[in-house]
Amino acid sequence: MPPDSLDDLSNRLLAFARERDWEQFHSPKNLSMALAGEAGELLEHFQWLSEAQSAALDAGKKDAVALEMADILIYLLRLAERLDIDLVDAANRKLAINSTRYPAERVRGDARRADEYD
Amino acid sequence: MPPDSLDDLSNRLLAFARERDWEQFHSPKNLSMALAGEAGELLEHFQWLSEAQSAALDAGKKDAVALEMADILIYLLRLAERLDIDLVDAANRKLAINSTRYPAERVRGDARRADEYD
Amino acid sequence: MPPDSLDDLSNRLLAFARERDWEQFHSPKNLSMALAGEAGELLEHFQWLSEAQSAALDAGKKDAVALEMADILIYLLRLAERLDIDLVDAANRKLAINSTRYPAERVRGDARRADEYD
Amino acid sequence: MPPDSLDDLSNRLLAFARERDWEQFHSPKNLSMALAGEAGELLEHFQWLSEAQSAALDAGKKDAVALEMADILIYLLRLAERLDIDLVDAANRKLAINSTRYPAERVRGDARRADEYD
Repeated sequence: MPPDSLDDLSNRLLAFARERDWEQFHSPKNLSMALAGEAGELLEHFQWLSEAQSAALDAGKKDAVALEMADILIYLLRLAERLDIDLVDAANRKLAINSTRYPAERVRGDARRADEYD
Repeated sequence: MPPDSLDDLSNRLLAFARERDWEQFHSPKNLSMALAGEAGELLEHFQWLSEAQSAALDAGKKDAVALEMADILIYLLRLAERLDIDLVDAANRKLAINSTRYPAERVRGDARRADEYD
Repeated sequence: MPPDSLDDLSNRLLAFARERDWEQFHSPKNLSMALAGEAGELLEHFQWLSEAQSAALDAGKKDAVALEMADILIYLLRLAERLDIDLVDAANRKLAINSTRYPAERVRGDARRADEYD
Repeated sequence: MPPDSLDDLSNRLLAFARERDWEQFHSPKNLSMALAGEAGELLEHFQWLSEAQSAALDAGKKDAVALEMADILIYLLRLAERLDIDLVDAANRKLAINSTRYPAERVRGDARRADEYD
């Protein structure tokens, strides 16, 4: 991945929308729906597979999954642009929060959510 | 955003999971569910807002939305790592596909999907 | 709607699955994914429409939406059957909970969630 | 389930919304988002469980799942009311479509979608 590839991608997505006069449809509300719709399509690839099968996709299926994930990233970047949110910064902050909420020595091998611990 | 920040984030997410022995839960199937669950939480922030309201969030709400978007990026990166998918490359490929599927002069101001055109 | 039409539908869905030896795929986990996938398809019908447009669908679009909603009901009934849950009873219980949580005189015209009130 | 319990439930949900002046928020677009948000919450109960674990919930977890499913049914009924769609009729029509699309002798034990067959 070249430097600043995410910023570059976001800029090209904005240009793509502007060339088609599609910014009018890209309210944060609408973009959240489009993102969730794509997340639903991603689920459909995996819903009848075992966990093991989901980790051993053939090339055609893997590429279809990659393109669904691309759609999710695309709408996530469009939404971040519209709300002026720095996605990578937010993810770093969330990772710091999770490090405090789920200390390794406490939760090792246990997938419960923080509010499910005593 | 510093260079290679997405790769760096992905590496730290992997380390976070390993320190907690959580890789065992991170099958692609399970990660697609976690991602879609977070997409659902994102929807909940916007579901009763008008489109205009969704574009004018107060600071507290905007930060809550940023952290939901962070969760989505986090699971997207974990899934990409598990399936050995280059997310930014996939998004660039998808953007090229969309450029062919939706020529600007044909779809300007029209939000129908490609299969909804005559 | 004739009496017991929901029970009858659930029974025919179970027979449909058994005739195809599909019960093996119908774990609650998998059914929750299929249901969420259909909820994502429902979103896609509405994502670029205004709220007003979403209330004034033409006949073809309305029928497509009806069939997506049918898919959601189908997976909801399959899941209820697998977990031995009485859906209508659960909905009645949830309605009673909501009546307590959101007293009419307090929340009139206000769509915030219970945890968003002071 | 007593006769016409689904109609009765739908009527009480409408009354609940009217008493709170919440019909203004219940556009089909918004209700599709609320439904998908609840479908996301349902996923979260199952995302780190194995398929076997998802079929053997303890009583507390099962009740929490029942109440999420109730939320989905509630929004599905609200949406059907707003669009004047007969849900059970739509499900019966979809079941007939699926019977043609997936003949038992052809798809037995095979979870591929219709468009994935040769």
